[in-house]
Amino acid sequence: MTRTVGILIFDGIEVLDLGGPFEVLSVATRLAGRDGEAAPFQPVLIGASGAPAVGRGGFRVLPHATLDDHPPLDVLIVPGGVMDAPLADPRVREWVRAQSARVEVLASICTGAFLLASEGLLDGRRATTHWEDQVDLQAQFPALTVVPDVAWVDSGAVVTSGGISAGIDMTLHLVERLHSRALAERTARQMEFRWSGQGLRDGVNP
Amino acid sequence: MTRTVGILIFDGIEVLDLGGPFEVLSVATRLAGRDGEAAPFQPVLIGASGAPAVGRGGFRVLPHATLDDHPPLDVLIVPGGVMDAPLADPRVREWVRAQSARVEVLASICTGAFLLASEGLLDGRRATTHWEDQVDLQAQFPALTVVPDVAWVDSGAVVTSGGISAGIDMTLHLVERLHSRALAERTARQMEFRWSGQGLRDGVNP
Repeated sequence: MTRTVGILIFDGIEVLDLGGPFEVLSVATRLAGRDGEAAPFQPVLIGASGAPAVGRGGFRVLPHATLDDHPPLDVLIVPGGVMDAPLADPRVREWVRAQSARVEVLASICTGAFLLASEGLLDGRRATTHWEDQVDLQAQFPALTVVPDVAWVDSGAVVTSGGISAGIDMTLHLVERLHSRALAERTARQMEFRWSGQGLRDGVNP
Repeated sequence: MTRTVGILIFDGIEVLDLGGPFEVLSVATRLAGRDGEAAPFQPVLIGASGAPAVGRGGFRVLPHATLDDHPPLDVLIVPGGVMDAPLADPRVREWVRAQSARVEVLASICTGAFLLASEGLLDGRRATTHWEDQVDLQAQFPALTVVPDVAWVDSGAVVTSGGISAGIDMTLHLVERLHSRALAERTARQMEFRWSGQGLRDGVNP
């Protein structure tokens, strides 16, 4: 089966928080295709509108779909960066909350965890974020428990990751969880990425 | 001084070959700014035209400038991916050759080395590319010497790197070479990237 993986894009997005997971999913799908396998993943960049998102450093990326018009998602990834724009947009927040009830896995990278937390989606869970923001995340959202020093925390329906490159580690973990360890390892090797594998599996059905 | 770093974008570009170096330069500049320092780098995405480049997996990124209209470059990075489009475009090839005579450093990531090699810019040099393509690069261009098992080869005016994530390693090396080891290390830590530092310094004035 092909899993449709939505990646939210917004003004202020951290470029590698976006490019890393997209690359992992794209390479994994290419490698599976070499074996004649149906595409395991279809990454879809989703914007609040059809306009380009202006990421940090002025990187401009175009969405494939919008909040109002996108294929049904199996996985939703919320990247990080400067979160002011998505946090200030009630449409984005409501959409993330609505998707959280539908998808198999809801994931965040870096400061994307603040968007999940602000909707209460991390309450009662262990979670992580960029090392610089861990104290803030814990202070703002005492109903979650921040885990330091891991690339990602898999609490089943919700998976959070550390900063920037940790999103690559986490997406490789999602390839392992949703497809196979073998494909995740091949993908890391194809990307010449030193995959830490350093994460916390906090139960698959919390 | 601010160095303007051009990154060539084209249809078929590998997303992380683009996003990785852009992120390194952008994060390094942000961290330097925290210390009140002038921006060390200004990354500029340069397209053959002003149209979005459609990278692998359907990722669409907008250029900041075009071959005919861009600021003077101090560094030019040629990413990899499917190289058919840039190799088939005489304007792109001629522009890369012309820039090679002007910039302080010409760099390639992954299969971007094929574009440099096709213009003779790697003749007599040691160079590297994605591990899957090393045999082809050597066979097609016997005047260069392929080095396996390194993230990058710095031959002074020209720096080449291995596949995909190796472009991050290489760009961190450029931050070290053009600014400082301290800033490169801070950038890697900010990105939570496990920087190998595994490269070959082949002389700075070959």
